[in-house]
Amino acid sequence: MEQRVSLITLAVSDIEASAQFYEALGWLRVPSPDGVIAFDLIGQTLGLYPRKALAEDLGIPADTIGGFSGITLAHNVRSAEEVAPIIERAVAAGGRLLKPAQDIFWGGFVGYFADLDGHVWEVAHNPFAPLSKEGAFCWDGYGEPKKAE
Amino acid sequence: MEQRVSLITLAVSDIEASAQFYEALGWLRVPSPDGVIAFDLIGQTLGLYPRKALAEDLGIPADTIGGFSGITLAHNVRSAEEVAPIIERAVAAGGRLLKPAQDIFWGGFVGYFADLDGHVWEVAHNPFAPLSKEGAFCWDGYGEPKKAE
Repeated sequence: MEQRVSLITLAVSDIEASAQFYEALGWLRVPSPDGVIAFDLIGQTLGLYPRKALAEDLGIPADTIGGFSGITLAHNVRSAEEVAPIIERAVAAGGRLLKPAQDIFWGGFVGYFADLDGHVWEVAHNPFAPLSKEGAFCWDGYGEPKKAE
Repeated sequence: MEQRVSLITLAVSDIEASAQFYEALGWLRVPSPDGVIAFDLIGQTLGLYPRKALAEDLGIPADTIGGFSGITLAHNVRSAEEVAPIIERAVAAGGRLLKPAQDIFWGGFVGYFADLDGHVWEVAHNPFAPLSKEGAFCWDGYGEPKKAE
């Protein structure tokens, strides 16, 4: 099994409202199969998919989807100053503030919000693991603070 | 907000057992901060993190993490024949079979398993959206079946 996640699927209760939430963050949809709304990430796709349809695919009752399974999606940025405005924008678009942007014990600057269906996003600046020019994130060689590429 | 997920964090109850599960699938750890076990994906990192630590970071009780929030992580492969063996390997490593590999209505071949903490993985072959040489997945230009690069 190679190491990749091709598609992150977020089950949502109102797919059009959720799409508008991500568009309000500045994201652009790409063409996708009927019933899915997709956003291109780096080498990967984020798909919004109705909760009911996911339940059918998995053969489980739709009302067993909910709660918080402990998956968070981190969006890393190139400077600490970028963190708070993204979280404010998410909250303005109907997201829920989970933790305001703040220093965190490991030396980063981090905040959390939840989208319309409670999916948890971390917005983070990690001075120890700067993003590549293309936006790639990797801990390889983790240790000392590094200059961004 | 640029379009990327830098880090997918999976909250787990036993971080070492979970790491061994992913290693049994053939994945390799990379150096990472204390308390996190990390695997490099394409331009992204998958991190295993104790449920309790995530609860502390978020300021929520640890016992509110659980259930199924409706996020699935899809691992796409280059041929239908690769799907079932990956799912069998996951089950042999202690994962839970959710749906055996099978044809699905949209023309793909798909199966699902859950990891030790119930995080849901889809293993999929999508003949309409072949992976790039580097393993990137994208629905852009979605429509007709295409030849893999």
